[in-house]
Amino acid sequence: MKHSYRLYSYFRSSSAYRVRIALHLKGIPFAYQPVHLLQDGGQQNHESYLARNPFGEVPTLEVLDEEGNTVAAIGQSFAILEYLEEQHPETPLLPTDAIDRARVRQIAQGINSSIQPIQNLRVMQQLCKQFDTDMTHARRWSAYWIDRGFRSIEQLISQNAGTYAFGDSVTFADLFLVPQHYNAKRFKLDMGPFPTIERVCNNANQLDAFHRAAPEQQPDMPENPTP
Amino acid sequence: MKHSYRLYSYFRSSSAYRVRIALHLKGIPFAYQPVHLLQDGGQQNHESYLARNPFGEVPTLEVLDEEGNTVAAIGQSFAILEYLEEQHPETPLLPTDAIDRARVRQIAQGINSSIQPIQNLRVMQQLCKQFDTDMTHARRWSAYWIDRGFRSIEQLISQNAGTYAFGDSVTFADLFLVPQHYNAKRFKLDMGPFPTIERVCNNANQLDAFHRAAPEQQPDMPENPTP
Repeated sequence: MKHSYRLYSYFRSSSAYRVRIALHLKGIPFAYQPVHLLQDGGQQNHESYLARNPFGEVPTLEVLDEEGNTVAAIGQSFAILEYLEEQHPETPLLPTDAIDRARVRQIAQGINSSIQPIQNLRVMQQLCKQFDTDMTHARRWSAYWIDRGFRSIEQLISQNAGTYAFGDSVTFADLFLVPQHYNAKRFKLDMGPFPTIERVCNNANQLDAFHRAAPEQQPDMPENPTP
Repeated sequence: MKHSYRLYSYFRSSSAYRVRIALHLKGIPFAYQPVHLLQDGGQQNHESYLARNPFGEVPTLEVLDEEGNTVAAIGQSFAILEYLEEQHPETPLLPTDAIDRARVRQIAQGINSSIQPIQNLRVMQQLCKQFDTDMTHARRWSAYWIDRGFRSIEQLISQNAGTYAFGDSVTFADLFLVPQHYNAKRFKLDMGPFPTIERVCNNANQLDAFHRAAPEQQPDMPENPTP
């Protein structure tokens, strides 16, 4: 059966950004459904969205049958990416060697679980609430975790980086690193200590799929986004 | 070539706990190497450990050749589990259907990236430091995120739970849920709103592999652990 896809996304969500890159790299067409994380109390918190994704997070990938009925709604970028890799093995984004695959997943998971979740919007909002602080301090918190995580990632990727984060082919590692690098620049992180990250992200960003997946290219990118 | 394994672990680390369960379920022998996260300024921060795992986190799985030489050191529990699943497909921990696999990975990733990283020890330590607060407030922070995350997980698993979190076979979902449930009880979370989580974790804990992987059964479990 032929499936089609609808991606629930927010232009600036780094988790949605990863999936957009994969879809473009693999040449998979998809419908783009914006979910505004700040408007209307956060559209991800609306009941209609929570029914699709109980965590109230983007992205969600809806798998649709030929009549356009929903077969499944998959949340969590890593689960979506493994699914796409299995279903669309052309343009592979994982190496063929088992140890290499583990190394690539380790890099991607380092960003997925040891950096991004601690610095994202909902954590910043909760910091302000529980510790009676403001977004300036919350942004400092986020910058701290990206900096600390990038020290580890820089060391991890410097062993095997080529044109891209792991060798000379694009892998899951780049799909996670480029959006995190985008966040780092947004939080004005000094990239001086991270020459390998800087180099491989610049290389990846030359590719059309990465360009098309960037926040600035999304239909829900506002005219004057907040910094 | 025949490989053997050494697991760098801490009795109470929920990420290491996941891997211990998988190793026991699959009947894979391994050497247990304790890394004390609190002693000596945190043994995970020592140079010798950082050389194996630049993130300074447990677990790390060392893959050894027949002479006992290190072939690779893999960090990140999810990367380790996918590696073990590929190399030791007997006792599969992922369903055969692609959509079901995605659903199981979504549950596991929900814990891996949307709950555990925000409530773990290093985040609690940094909260105390940056917001000049104490462990009482940090524990409240952690309990908040487990409670919030469990509301989503409860909804997510109630759709497909059987004896275990996804159907009647143990999957990755149980490997992530049981250690998170252990943390929840440690932080004295009211489990009343989470009957499905409570039930499937109790079922999993009846299994020998889960019992052997529990913090209390590890060689580095102290006689009088802190609460």
